[in-house]
Amino acid sequence: MTNLKAKYEDLPEDYKALGGRGLTSTIVAKEVPPTCDPIGLHNKLVFAPGIVTGSTAPTSGRISVGGKSPLTGGIKEANAGTNFSQRLARLRIAAIVVEGKVKGNEYYLLKLTKDKTEFLKADKWVGKGLYDAYKEIFKEFGEKKVSVCGVGIAAELRGAMAGISFNDPEGLPSRYAGRGGLGAVMASKGLKFIVVDDTGAPGFEIANKKVFDEGIAKVRDALLAHSVTKKGGALNSYGTSVLVNIINEAQGLPQNNFSSGQDKRAEKISGEAKAEAIKKNGGVRPHFCSPGCIIQCSEVWTKPGGKDPVGCLEYESVWALGANCGIYDLDIVAELNRACNDLGTDTIETGGTIAVAMEGGVIKFGDGKGALSLTEEIRKKTPLGRILANGTQFTGRAFGVSRIPTVKGQSLPAYDPRAIKGIGVTYATTPMGADHTAGYAIATEIMGVGGKADPRDPKKAELSRNLQLATAAIDASGYCLFIAFAILDIPEGLQGVVESLNGVLGTNLTVNDVSVIGKQIIDIERDFNKAAGFTSAHDRLPEFFIDEKLPPSNEVFNVSNEELDSVF
Amino acid sequence: MTNLKAKYEDLPEDYKALGGRGLTSTIVAKEVPPTCDPIGLHNKLVFAPGIVTGSTAPTSGRISVGGKSPLTGGIKEANAGTNFSQRLARLRIAAIVVEGKVKGNEYYLLKLTKDKTEFLKADKWVGKGLYDAYKEIFKEFGEKKVSVCGVGIAAELRGAMAGISFNDPEGLPSRYAGRGGLGAVMASKGLKFIVVDDTGAPGFEIANKKVFDEGIAKVRDALLAHSVTKKGGALNSYGTSVLVNIINEAQGLPQNNFSSGQDKRAEKISGEAKAEAIKKNGGVRPHFCSPGCIIQCSEVWTKPGGKDPVGCLEYESVWALGANCGIYDLDIVAELNRACNDLGTDTIETGGTIAVAMEGGVIKFGDGKGALSLTEEIRKKTPLGRILANGTQFTGRAFGVSRIPTVKGQSLPAYDPRAIKGIGVTYATTPMGADHTAGYAIATEIMGVGGKADPRDPKKAELSRNLQLATAAIDASGYCLFIAFAILDIPEGLQGVVESLNGVLGTNLTVNDVSVIGKQIIDIERDFNKAAGFTSAHDRLPEFFIDEKLPPSNEVFNVSNEELDSVF
Repeated sequence: MTNLKAKYEDLPEDYKALGGRGLTSTIVAKEVPPTCDPIGLHNKLVFAPGIVTGSTAPTSGRISVGGKSPLTGGIKEANAGTNFSQRLARLRIAAIVVEGKVKGNEYYLLKLTKDKTEFLKADKWVGKGLYDAYKEIFKEFGEKKVSVCGVGIAAELRGAMAGISFNDPEGLPSRYAGRGGLGAVMASKGLKFIVVDDTGAPGFEIANKKVFDEGIAKVRDALLAHSVTKKGGALNSYGTSVLVNIINEAQGLPQNNFSSGQDKRAEKISGEAKAEAIKKNGGVRPHFCSPGCIIQCSEVWTKPGGKDPVGCLEYESVWALGANCGIYDLDIVAELNRACNDLGTDTIETGGTIAVAMEGGVIKFGDGKGALSLTEEIRKKTPLGRILANGTQFTGRAFGVSRIPTVKGQSLPAYDPRAIKGIGVTYATTPMGADHTAGYAIATEIMGVGGKADPRDPKKAELSRNLQLATAAIDASGYCLFIAFAILDIPEGLQGVVESLNGVLGTNLTVNDVSVIGKQIIDIERDFNKAAGFTSAHDRLPEFFIDEKLPPSNEVFNVSNEELDSVF
Repeated sequence: MTNLKAKYEDLPEDYKALGGRGLTSTIVAKEVPPTCDPIGLHNKLVFAPGIVTGSTAPTSGRISVGGKSPLTGGIKEANAGTNFSQRLARLRIAAIVVEGKVKGNEYYLLKLTKDKTEFLKADKWVGKGLYDAYKEIFKEFGEKKVSVCGVGIAAELRGAMAGISFNDPEGLPSRYAGRGGLGAVMASKGLKFIVVDDTGAPGFEIANKKVFDEGIAKVRDALLAHSVTKKGGALNSYGTSVLVNIINEAQGLPQNNFSSGQDKRAEKISGEAKAEAIKKNGGVRPHFCSPGCIIQCSEVWTKPGGKDPVGCLEYESVWALGANCGIYDLDIVAELNRACNDLGTDTIETGGTIAVAMEGGVIKFGDGKGALSLTEEIRKKTPLGRILANGTQFTGRAFGVSRIPTVKGQSLPAYDPRAIKGIGVTYATTPMGADHTAGYAIATEIMGVGGKADPRDPKKAELSRNLQLATAAIDASGYCLFIAFAILDIPEGLQGVVESLNGVLGTNLTVNDVSVIGKQIIDIERDFNKAAGFTSAHDRLPEFFIDEKLPPSNEVFNVSNEELDSVF
């Protein structure tokens, strides 16, 4: 970005079997000084489709984004489902590595086509919401043939809650590599958008088509067979927010900044209520986030009459912007979600931030209008907006709050770790900062997927470790993490995933290699974090989870430090 | 504070030879969980006079304050010169340990007398400046017989730049244990003021009066003989800001947020200019900060006609609020200093914060009125004020600045480490975060005290280490660190210090024990920090000191990481 030049390099031999998180974390660990300033000259931002992304493998349109996180100060990988990744892959681009920093304050749009790389001025979109910006960009660059990635106003502020947005099939900026503030890294380099046009692309390469086809058939069968992932199954019918009622029932749905684990009003923002409302309002449900998805957990939420489409209202977003703020009104939650997408913020971090601001007395719990007005502070770039744009930890500190639900500076997701201990072990120990996707213990503790585990049992190191390793491998594969529900329960599905990887790469991996691959990735990430200054002292939950009982279960987080440290 | 109860305990046998920083760091390390929230329930705040404080030992009216720092996240000791410490010592109080947290939002004043401990409501002083508050408190509790310690509006905000103020001889709130945000810790506990009345105190105990008297005579002789500390010497004539011209000459006086090391205009804010102005305006110069000081580097700066007395304008303050903000006007600098004292902020952190806000475009470099208006934002408790009250690192992040001059989150003092490397080694490696007093290499590198060292030579681990060990011991003794100038050059002076300690304690320490005592203290502090999550990655300067040349010397900070890591 310093000289506005792009250079193509062949993928080094030892990177050839890498993709997604495997590739982003490897490049970041190799090329970024661990103690560097995340928004300084030396950080790099890496985009990489997964190994099978761009192929006909089902539910595999993932893109990983990596760099040093301004939020956690550690290595970060965030991923999203979007056809952006598939176009990149068909252009045979294994990764984009963004280096350097524009001199001065301009912003650029990087346009990638089969033959050319261009840096175009993007200043006209500075200060503009992403819904409008995406609309204009699609109009300018060709609606049907391009995909878009971009950062919004929060990133212009270098806010540590700024995510990186990608288009959904409707062209809305609603698919987010949200967590860890990588949007601020992108903006710090002077890069505002990437537009990928894959016209005439050479297409996806497969080393052994037969092995691949056999593999993906098994994956497809598993997805279509499992109750969570099949057509008409939980995710397909209600989207991820099918979990609202389930987690509320388990007394682990945090209310009012993690002050309680249950509230009757939560059903008003449940997946079931949402599906009903979409039917009435005229949105789309179900819907895929990227072509080729079988699960189709996504949707387009709109106002009545199909107005102001938001995109998908995920469980995490509905919880963060809803229950955690004491807001039990889907219309307001959806408006807040639209504001997040428009400003370019991570919904989990935004909800955590608003809740902590409520705790600090800025507005009252339950004040939906107040919450919307806080997002406007970010848009107006006021001092209050700058506080909020930097996330939960930062906002808590600004307002003298000591109940700040973060690990490594990142806001906790939608499961109270006092009621459901295994997910707390993942929050504490993943190199990513508090992150549910990094080792989704909820699957086993609540949904009985991949075995069963009592959510109140504090012995969860092994469960979290196994899931963290498997997750890292899936995040590298290009498959959506949601295939895990099916392949944890259906051995042929897992076999199919491995065969599809072998088909693409021409390798001879076995099922046992999955955790080995996961371990390699996590080792790389933990080594980076160690060099960046992380120790076991950072693998801890905030003290209020140990001091304060969670109503109504009255549980505390009673996982010992020894148990936490035994994860890795 | 939870139950508003005070309990007296005998000093444990193994604490009997401890005082000042030795005692605060020992208690904090033993009783405070290293990973706790600094403004949460589990942190403690410890006040301890030095070993000889309260005796007739010259220049020894120091008080140490310790706790876990909200600014650095590590252990913190900050000390000040004030008769508060001497009254405590005469009451034979070795330390005050403040624990727990008031339930609710009230604030209290702790009153200590020979016979009684009272917790009185202090809410009437909330939101009030400390100059007025101190005036009222002295009026209420007896001007001649009490000393006062307190926290201001910045601490009410839990701002990490909030210091703890103590009265000077005029009753002004101008003596600060300023660094590391311990004021926020005090406020978080619901404690606003401590008033000490030593009427009828049993007085200071000395084990061996003869040894003590012989010792302090040697200290006195050394202080009166050395050019830096004698009457009419550098400190006595001009105060600490005699350094302005000296460090500017050495090309190490940071201007405009560490963008240059020299500026001709700096002489307008020099110690010499200040002494002239005090003569004209009607303040007091020289002056002691606490009774029994021989050096008398302090003063009372006022507006013309003796109006609006500030107290002392220290070198660090004049630099931070002056040159580092591009402000070369003593009247404005003094007004800013008064605002800091009134709001209860550390002047170094405040100047660093304003400079970074200038770099972030909030106001322009050199804008004195603008700088004053920023301090008013803290007073008004606006969102911008809350950003600023949290210090340089926080403000830099809020405004997307990547040139943030901090180590372990604490703002760098008044010496550019590119021009003067040894002080940079101290900034990087002291457990305190960037702190000049922790190992004042300037003495040797610039003033030729305790030997000579080329400021541009990057081999400075040994110099910094030796000074850090000696400093920790002096900070425990109760002597002001400024005796170091004399005792580093005059062996009898050092001998006298050790004899005076032996006289008080009844011990048989030798000169060789000084660094042993210092090492014990620093080991305790480093162990705490390690358990709090610090590694060698935190013993580093910000990358811009390595990347950017400092005009006019064009030096960078070229001390290797290996050299830094060899300090301890």
